[in-house]
This record gives sequence, structure tokens and C-alpha cells, in this order.
Amino acid sequence: MFAAMEFSDFTLRLLDQRLLPGQIEWLQCRDLGAVCEAIETMAVRGAPAIATSAAYGLVIDAHVAQIEGGIQYWQDYKDRWETAVNRLLQTRPTAVNLQNALKGHRHLVGEWPEELPMAKVVEAFEQFASRLQADDLATCQQIGSHGAELVESPVRVLTHCNTGSLATAGYGTALGVIRRLHEEDKLVHVLVDETRPFLQGSRLTALELRQEGIPFALQVDAAAAFAMKEGKVDMVVVGADRIASNGDTANKIGTYNLAVAAYYHNVPFYVAAPLSTFDFDLKSGQMIPIEQRPASELTEFKRQHVAPEGIEVWNPSFDVTPAELINGIITERGVLTAPYQQSIAGFDL
Amino acid sequence: MFAAMEFSDFTLRLLDQRLLPGQIEWLQCRDLGAVCEAIETMAVRGAPAIATSAAYGLVIDAHVAQIEGGIQYWQDYKDRWETAVNRLLQTRPTAVNLQNALKGHRHLVGEWPEELPMAKVVEAFEQFASRLQADDLATCQQIGSHGAELVESPVRVLTHCNTGSLATAGYGTALGVIRRLHEEDKLVHVLVDETRPFLQGSRLTALELRQEGIPFALQVDAAAAFAMKEGKVDMVVVGADRIASNGDTANKIGTYNLAVAAYYHNVPFYVAAPLSTFDFDLKSGQMIPIEQRPASELTEFKRQHVAPEGIEVWNPSFDVTPAELINGIITERGVLTAPYQQSIAGFDL
Repeated sequence: MFAAMEFSDFTLRLLDQRLLPGQIEWLQCRDLGAVCEAIETMAVRGAPAIATSAAYGLVIDAHVAQIEGGIQYWQDYKDRWETAVNRLLQTRPTAVNLQNALKGHRHLVGEWPEELPMAKVVEAFEQFASRLQADDLATCQQIGSHGAELVESPVRVLTHCNTGSLATAGYGTALGVIRRLHEEDKLVHVLVDETRPFLQGSRLTALELRQEGIPFALQVDAAAAFAMKEGKVDMVVVGADRIASNGDTANKIGTYNLAVAAYYHNVPFYVAAPLSTFDFDLKSGQMIPIEQRPASELTEFKRQHVAPEGIEVWNPSFDVTPAELINGIITERGVLTAPYQQSIAGFDL
Repeated sequence: MFAAMEFSDFTLRLLDQRLLPGQIEWLQCRDLGAVCEAIETMAVRGAPAIATSAAYGLVIDAHVAQIEGGIQYWQDYKDRWETAVNRLLQTRPTAVNLQNALKGHRHLVGEWPEELPMAKVVEAFEQFASRLQADDLATCQQIGSHGAELVESPVRVLTHCNTGSLATAGYGTALGVIRRLHEEDKLVHVLVDETRPFLQGSRLTALELRQEGIPFALQVDAAAAFAMKEGKVDMVVVGADRIASNGDTANKIGTYNLAVAAYYHNVPFYVAAPLSTFDFDLKSGQMIPIEQRPASELTEFKRQHVAPEGIEVWNPSFDVTPAELINGIITERGVLTAPYQQSIAGFDL
């Protein structure tokens, strides 16, 4: 598995995913701004990985405040912490894991005494971040295991985007299911959508699958329906960036397209995501904010123009798949099925 | 409109569509090999444009045979002509317009006397090619006109690939319909699929629409279903590379995906193509050969790797949309509707 994130000496080292598979370069983030920029520019991406990066960003900020800013007590840092949290919240709007992690952080500091020394603050933040990271890995492994239970005889799986060890603390969500199927000899082959415009499929998922020796083929996103028609797909598994309480799921643009095609061809369509991807404040997917990304993601490739300059581009980074097109949501606690509200209630969260 | 093809002095000048929109470069084809290579490498593409290029290729070959080979009579050229036709037939297997044009050529030479002088042969070939080109332009204008008759109040149209003046002798098929809608003030906006892997949408259709001042936005192919869900699309119009006699239609990969999405969202889905795109020898689309293109179209961009080297790629250049997903086929003679066999019979071809 790829380790794409390392934290030590108050430096968050992030494998720059924009340069993969061609270049292996690590960003060294030593202040909050650097972490925010890495998230915004998608040097680190994937809903769970963003959440963990943000948590480490808060460790770094507290440390910098103490060492460089000479701040000694929580009461003198509190406002800056609030600003840091808000800054992180603005990096990317769709994935909710970030927001849920920051909610956890807010809970953590909730009853702290004003005179708590900054050394303790930093220590607590670091514990929080490393627990988040460790939990994410364990969660992914449980998701993989529950996903594999859905399958009896070997299957051909189609997936979209990257949901692997690069998108999480390790193992992956949808790719965790694929990994586990492979480990249990229940996997024939994976069809990987290249995933325009950012090519997470070509650049990242292909890299992870090749490293694991998992058989796969890359295809253009729009070939998915034809692949289903040709009988090449037994199930679709994708990740998620935010799931409303009715099961509606926001995920990488193209996911809804896949769900429609899967429905039409009677191919089971699964979402694999930790429970931290749920936004229980939202009744339906209609409320999920959809991030619009820059036009240049479509009109340029490595600064070379591939389209006429200055044209209008519609570039939503995510879409929303309604619950009725989802056969199941694979979580660390088991597989949720429709009606999702009831199914989630059964988990007694 | 772009003139992408010029013939004079036994030279076929082709605007190299692989370099658009960044570079304007004309290939000068002075022998059959150069024409075949231009078709194979997609310097010229689009089913009607391929057919016209091939017809000019045969003019050039006959001229070269006469001038450089010293051949004086049809009887001494016949075998070489047969070889040239077969060479052209092998360039790209899916689009049938090429095959239909070459059938026309075969019909032309069918009763020629052995001693027909090569000057006459060359002259007849040139007449054939220029008539094919002129007919194609007139045909496209008729298609545009019949397509526009389908629409009453202004619509938002989604299209895929490039079917414009770059893909035909001028005006275009699906883009001809869009052009005509715009001329008749029946067009609100066009959503253009970028059309991976060759980016005909970004590179070519965007160029043509901008030149005409037609309002449009570019999107990734996999955003199409989401655009329909968001109510951004009133109709889909695409071109065709081969249509079986039951109406099943082969077209650029991703077309079937669009048809499924359109069906699911109750958006009318139209194919615009000249009657020369029909292959009446085929009962259904299952018989249409689907060209597989090189893996490098997905794994490389301008010779830079965007995916790990040596991976497996599934890269069908076309897919087949079954007739039941097509609301109508817009031809130069009018709009065909299901059942297509009956509807075609009504044309009394």
C-alpha cells in the first residue's frame, strides 16, 4: 500500500498526488496555509485523507503558535484556533468528513480550562489526529471485509475515481472492498474509469492496483455503459464524499452517470464509505453543496491548451446519486440498505 | 465554417485535426499512403470526411500511376486500383460511409472498357470525388433543416464528439442541426461533451461553435447524466458512423452512455446522419465491427504518461446504441422513426 501521508516533527509530509504516476514528490507542510493549499489544489484528495490532513494542520498551527508566536495558554490561542478551523472548512465544500472531523475537534476543546498550557493543547491535537488516522485505516479494513461478504463467486467490478490508500489513511473504501475481494479470491477483474478531469483513475487507482497485482483495465468514463451492455461488469463499487440521511450520495462527477447505467443494466451499484461520510443534518442530497472547479481542469493539460481559450466550462467536481439507485452502502458497521433512514437507525449510532 | 479539406493539383490538403485548436497545420497528401495514414492516425476524422478523403486518395493514386508509373490504360491500372480500394477499406473499420463511397467507385468503373485512357480515368475519379464532397455538403444542410423542424420553441442541446464542418464536407450532421437551430433562433445553449479520449468536443466542436458565436459550455463526458438530472438538457443530438437496417447505431464511444441517460431522464435522443451511413447489409448493430484504438490514447497525453506504463486498456473507439433508445434518425430525406425498417422503406431508396 502507498503511504501518502506522514507526520513527524510538526511537519505533514504529503505525497503530491497531482504529479503521480510520473513523479514522486513530497510536500512538506510546516504551517496551516501549506496544508490548506495542499487540500485546495488537490495535492491531497479523497474525503478521509482530507479530514486527516486537516487534523494534522491544526496540530501544526498550535505548535507554530506556541513556538513562534510565544503563546502559552489555551485562552490566548482559542481565537486563532477558531480561525484555523474556519479556514480549513473553506478549503473544499462537498466532502463532509472534514467537517465531521472538525466537529470532533470542537468537541475535544469544548471543556478545556482557559489556562491549559499550549504544550497540552498540542499534545491533545496530535493524539486526536493520529487517532483519526488510525481509526480511518481500521474503518477501511472493516468496510473491505463487509463489502466482500456481499460476494459469493468471483466478480468483475467497475470503479470510479480513486478510493484507495491514497484517498484514505490506507487500504481504501471502494478500493478496500476490491482489495479484500482480491485477497479472498473473489475478484476476476476491475474496470477502472479514468475519471476526468483529474484522471484519478488513470493516475492513482491504476498505480495502486498494479502495485497490488490486481488485474484491471483502464477505460474512458463514457465507456462504462457499453461495458455493462457487453456483460463485462458484475458490480459497481464507488466511494462517497457526503451521504445525506436518506442515503443520497455525493461523489466524484460521473458517479451518478454510472448509477443510472448500472440501474438500466441491472448491475448492483454499491457505495463504500465510513460513517463519518454521513451528514445527518441533511434530509436529502439536494442540500449537498457541489463544488465547482476551475475551467482549466478541462481546457488545459499541464499548461497546454486542449480547448480554445476563454470558453465557458461546466465543471462540477461532484454529483449526487439518489438513494433509490444505490443497492447498498458499505460501512465499517455493515451494509446499509434501503430504506436508509431505518437501516441507519438500526446501527444505534 | 472551417474548410478542413482542399483538393487541387492532385494534392489533398487536410487540416491536421490532431493539432487543433493550438496549431493550424495542413498535411499535403500526394500519394495514397499519405491519405491512408491521415485517416488511420485521425488527422482527418468524421465518417463523411473520411469517405471524401478516400475518394480523393483514389484520384491521387490514379494520377501518380499515370504520371510516375507511365500507365496509359485502365486495363493496366485496374489491379492497382483494386489494391488501393482494399488498402483504404482497412484504414478504419467502423464507419460505413467509406465503404459505401468505395462501393460507388466500384459501380463507376464497372463497365469501363479496358482501353480507357488514364486521363479519362483520373478525370472520372476526380468528378466522383468532387461530387461526393458537394453532395455531402448539400446533404448536411438538408439534415440541419429537417432536424430544426423537430423543434418548436428554443432548446438546450447536448452533443458528443465533433460532427461539424471538420467531420464532413461542411456544415455538419448533428452540428448541422445545431447550426440550423441557431440560425432559426431555436437554440438556447449547447452542452458539449469533451469526448475522451481524443477530445473532439474540446478541441474541435468548441472551436466551431465559438467561431459561429453559438453559446455553449464544455463538460466532462460523465457529467452528462447529472446535467440531465439538473434539467439542463432538452434534447441530445449526435452523429453516426454506421447504422444497421433496424436503426441500431454505432457512433463515438460514449454515445450509448448518453442514450441510456437520456432514456432514464426522458430527454429525446436523436441521431443525425446521411443515408450513406446506413449499412443495409446488417440486420442489427451486433454485426457492426468495433474498432479498438491504441492504449496510448488513454495512457499518454502529447507523449507524457498520465497512467502507469504497460497497463491494460479497453479502448473501443465506438459503441452501439440500440434503435429502441433512439427517438429519431435525422437524414437528408427527413426524420426516420421506429420501427426503422418500415420508416426506411417509406423513403423508397
